[in-house]
Amino acid sequence: MTDQPVGHPATDLDDVVHQRVRLGVLTIAHQARRVEFGFLRTTLDLTAGNLGQHLTVLEKAGLVSIEKGYEGRRPRTWINLTKAGERALRDEISNLKRLIQQVEDSEA
Amino acid sequence: MTDQPVGHPATDLDDVVHQRVRLGVLTIAHQARRVEFGFLRTTLDLTAGNLGQHLTVLEKAGLVSIEKGYEGRRPRTWINLTKAGERALRDEISNLKRLIQQVEDSEA
Repeated sequence: MTDQPVGHPATDLDDVVHQRVRLGVLTIAHQARRVEFGFLRTTLDLTAGNLGQHLTVLEKAGLVSIEKGYEGRRPRTWINLTKAGERALRDEISNLKRLIQQVEDSEA
Repeated sequence: MTDQPVGHPATDLDDVVHQRVRLGVLTIAHQARRVEFGFLRTTLDLTAGNLGQHLTVLEKAGLVSIEKGYEGRRPRTWINLTKAGERALRDEISNLKRLIQQVEDSEA
């Protein structure tokens, strides 16, 4: 049994970011820069309530900002990734890469 | 705003596997083949109760098997990855790679 150094990549993952739906939201917001609520909801196959809960967690953590407006006469909600959100996603990706590397190294 | 194909990688992640602590357990059990409870607990910086809860979820899902025994006179618990656990970890890793690829492609 190899002696694992303390500080496994999994311990550096942040639950606010790492949670499956929230990771999807941050990834899409990163790609699209500014993404509309309905698009997120269908792409991630969620109910509006479920997506709303996760957006509240992300907004409270300062990782996204939420913008309300209209498209024509239709009320619309847009989600933007904040600078802190960009950093948090980058940290998550680098920790995930470390974890994947460990799995693949042990197979080499 | 780019049109994302339905089926974002985040929707293919399995919460049983993806959850931060459980992902750590599966990764270490994959590397060590057979890993002792105390080693997992310290490496992932958990309480025994917290680790025990996550192991119950993984065992119920058939992803790990749990073995009780003794090392000398000391009672010991070992965790082994099942075949289903290997497959689940491999699926998780490939979905995470797809997700990471999407983030990095959007930066290219």
